[in-house]
Amino acid sequence: MKVQREFCKALEKEEDPRYAFRVDRWTRSEGGGGVSCILQDGHTFEKAGVNVSVVHGEIPPSAVAQMNSRGKKLPEGKRMPFFACGISSVIHPRNPMVPTIHFNYRYFEVEENPGQTRWWFGGGCDLTPYYLDPEDGRFFHRLLKSVCDRHDVRYYPKFKAWCDDYFRIKHRGNSRGIGGILFDDLDKPDKESCFNFVKDCAHSVTPLYLPLVRKHRERHYGYAERQWQLVRRGHYAEFNLVYDRGTKFGLYTPGARYESILMSLPLTAKWEYMHEIPAGGKEEELVKVLKKPIDWAAGQEMNPKNTES
Amino acid sequence: MKVQREFCKALEKEEDPRYAFRVDRWTRSEGGGGVSCILQDGHTFEKAGVNVSVVHGEIPPSAVAQMNSRGKKLPEGKRMPFFACGISSVIHPRNPMVPTIHFNYRYFEVEENPGQTRWWFGGGCDLTPYYLDPEDGRFFHRLLKSVCDRHDVRYYPKFKAWCDDYFRIKHRGNSRGIGGILFDDLDKPDKESCFNFVKDCAHSVTPLYLPLVRKHRERHYGYAERQWQLVRRGHYAEFNLVYDRGTKFGLYTPGARYESILMSLPLTAKWEYMHEIPAGGKEEELVKVLKKPIDWAAGQEMNPKNTES
Repeated sequence: MKVQREFCKALEKEEDPRYAFRVDRWTRSEGGGGVSCILQDGHTFEKAGVNVSVVHGEIPPSAVAQMNSRGKKLPEGKRMPFFACGISSVIHPRNPMVPTIHFNYRYFEVEENPGQTRWWFGGGCDLTPYYLDPEDGRFFHRLLKSVCDRHDVRYYPKFKAWCDDYFRIKHRGNSRGIGGILFDDLDKPDKESCFNFVKDCAHSVTPLYLPLVRKHRERHYGYAERQWQLVRRGHYAEFNLVYDRGTKFGLYTPGARYESILMSLPLTAKWEYMHEIPAGGKEEELVKVLKKPIDWAAGQEMNPKNTES
Repeated sequence: MKVQREFCKALEKEEDPRYAFRVDRWTRSEGGGGVSCILQDGHTFEKAGVNVSVVHGEIPPSAVAQMNSRGKKLPEGKRMPFFACGISSVIHPRNPMVPTIHFNYRYFEVEENPGQTRWWFGGGCDLTPYYLDPEDGRFFHRLLKSVCDRHDVRYYPKFKAWCDDYFRIKHRGNSRGIGGILFDDLDKPDKESCFNFVKDCAHSVTPLYLPLVRKHRERHYGYAERQWQLVRRGHYAEFNLVYDRGTKFGLYTPGARYESILMSLPLTAKWEYMHEIPAGGKEEELVKVLKKPIDWAAGQEMNPKNTES
């Protein structure tokens, strides 16, 4: 909730003061609740949602099957109490020159047998530009790498590849954006270290995103750029509704607060049959990168102290 | 293809002559192809797609598992040739007073063993109004019932309930629209009778829909009605991307023509966090019906000869 508060405050500073985050506290009859912060139809941000949820109850059998399909080895066919908490956020800015960011960091606990609990952390952060500024890609990935490197130098390469793999819109043969990091089932070396890593990741979102908002928010754009942004937002909605594990887990969970889950969807999206990308333009440049992810952090290392200041 | 041609021609008659259907013929490298007709961003129709596809190849194991989960009892874990053909269409009109229609009629064949083939028909037709005219609901359902009754009086009640059940947006506790008919695995009493039924259904689409277009296309509407239409189009996209079997089957099939599959999505959709429906208005009236489907064909029978003329 500290990260939620700080990130929302940082975003509000970039917004016309007439628009502020609306704060909804909600409870779930099956156990737990959350706080959803949302700023919608603003000047800088078209839809910005930051959601914290702390839920518990009994894990649905379908969720156990899904977890086991990724190698979790939980006992199937029995009632198991679970506890989950996390922060998740998607920021869709108005100006197509400003990228969309998504992040989610979470903790999960299942009581396999009375007194015997399995726990793990998961999460990630990724960027979806409409017009690609390669400097942004390098900045974003190098800063993520520096955060990862402080904890384990094996993290960034592994979690960067995981992110590229996960956010594929398979039917289009495209990535949703230019990636970032993604991980799940993190339970080593110990709980304290994992939590420190995840905290560090969550606190890095403001320094990862705010510089990009400030850099691009006053850039000019016209009808064509807005249309391309809407088409790409259609692809974003496709990924979230067809492939995203979190969205599906959420929508299939009884008593889920679907308004908070669907906060990730853009305010407006467009599906144009056979949308044609003008040859040789900035849109085509982006699509090339979406087809084949780039190793953005390659080359000279960034000094994390400089990038965070 | 005859139904496709006739329906497109009938729609074009309601459209500004500057807009015509674009016709795309496509082939699938794995076997077969199709014809997609689309009219987009027109005056009467915002997005109208009518697609015919005739495909064959080997059935993916995931599709066999899905079919068996609904009781098909096909042998799993072996390569089986399949043949499928069908027509599918979604018409999203510009004016929020005109409902969206969807229909799909298809034939499926699997060669379980050499020379031993299983076949069945499936399909349906349903209506999604933005502003409910109860007269439309009665007209639509009674005409569908009269078509069904010509073949088997048990069809309409069964297929109407099937449709209501299938088109639930479960997380919202709403139906996508006001229903119609839906059926699958139709293989009785014999192929000829089934085909005659499906043909009759397909030929009824023009008399089912065109009267509604003509009745409402010149009605006035403003910003609020357009916004409600866009919100409801978001729900339409949610159903198709999260729940619809055909869309999922399509998107997960290697080499599928995703542009034809996603033709069903509206040109524009909106996701507003916590969208509020004005109390006591026409929007609320519709939502009540979406929560609890109505038995539209109840009461006095319609004379099919009158409704089709």
